[in-house]
Amino acid sequence: MIKTKIVLGLIFLTCCMLLTRQTFAASNEAEIRQVFENWAKAFSAHDIKGIMSIYAPNVVAFDFVAPLQYVGKDAYQKDYEEFVAQFDGPIDVEFHDLKIVAGNDVAFGYTLERFSGKMKNGQKMDLWGRCTSGFQKINGKWLDVHDHCSVPADFDTGKALLDLKP
Amino acid sequence: MIKTKIVLGLIFLTCCMLLTRQTFAASNEAEIRQVFENWAKAFSAHDIKGIMSIYAPNVVAFDFVAPLQYVGKDAYQKDYEEFVAQFDGPIDVEFHDLKIVAGNDVAFGYTLERFSGKMKNGQKMDLWGRCTSGFQKINGKWLDVHDHCSVPADFDTGKALLDLKP
Repeated sequence: MIKTKIVLGLIFLTCCMLLTRQTFAASNEAEIRQVFENWAKAFSAHDIKGIMSIYAPNVVAFDFVAPLQYVGKDAYQKDYEEFVAQFDGPIDVEFHDLKIVAGNDVAFGYTLERFSGKMKNGQKMDLWGRCTSGFQKINGKWLDVHDHCSVPADFDTGKALLDLKP
Repeated sequence: MIKTKIVLGLIFLTCCMLLTRQTFAASNEAEIRQVFENWAKAFSAHDIKGIMSIYAPNVVAFDFVAPLQYVGKDAYQKDYEEFVAQFDGPIDVEFHDLKIVAGNDVAFGYTLERFSGKMKNGQKMDLWGRCTSGFQKINGKWLDVHDHCSVPADFDTGKALLDLKP
């Protein structure tokens, strides 16, 4: 009788642990998806403070444009400021197949991303790129510690491929 | 007396848990670093089987070259086969500041990467790029589920920047 109670108790505990783990995983994924949404909203509105709020101080970014890497939040903020300053009005962002892979304290996400908007030089931008972000949960908050955004290259012609579509 | 024993026991248990956690983190980081090393060795030797052994079946890759993404191991293998076939002899790979961020079952790593070698068309390749990889521990083994490799672009000239150095 006591043995049965112990076994049932253990089964109950194991179920609780598995459920908790799944709930945490789903919650982490939802939290990171929200970070992407917050970023897109801030980016569209040229809201530099909002954009930068998702990043850790030691973020390392491989951006669409040179140099090879931006090390630290200040350098990356300058890059963002220069980028959004080229636009007249909102920059629309569309995620295509955003995929999040989340553990308890480390996660990453990747997506194809469409950027469109009216530029100050009169041109319209309509560009599909690829973006990958790495996250760490720091003091209970998911922060972006690594960005990688790019377009593919054609090594034969030396051209950046700016007109690809998924 | 019993209370003291309980408190000491709890302190001991907490220390054990913290130490175990740190040991696992260090071990996970070392394991993923080894995956990068294994990949570089296989890549240098045009060893397609060795290269592909690091990837999960459902890997999604954003590569240096078009298309925007390669979905699944078969598609990515074809991309690798075409790439290494352009080289006559080994392709040297040098990692610059390889950084690994590892949890218990999710991790990512990123690095600047130098590729050099002699191509079959007589040209020499000496290229610095950026690579990011996302990993999941599946059945106790770290597998690469996402790659992102690129060079920056110059949006004004439309050129891919193939001669940058860190």
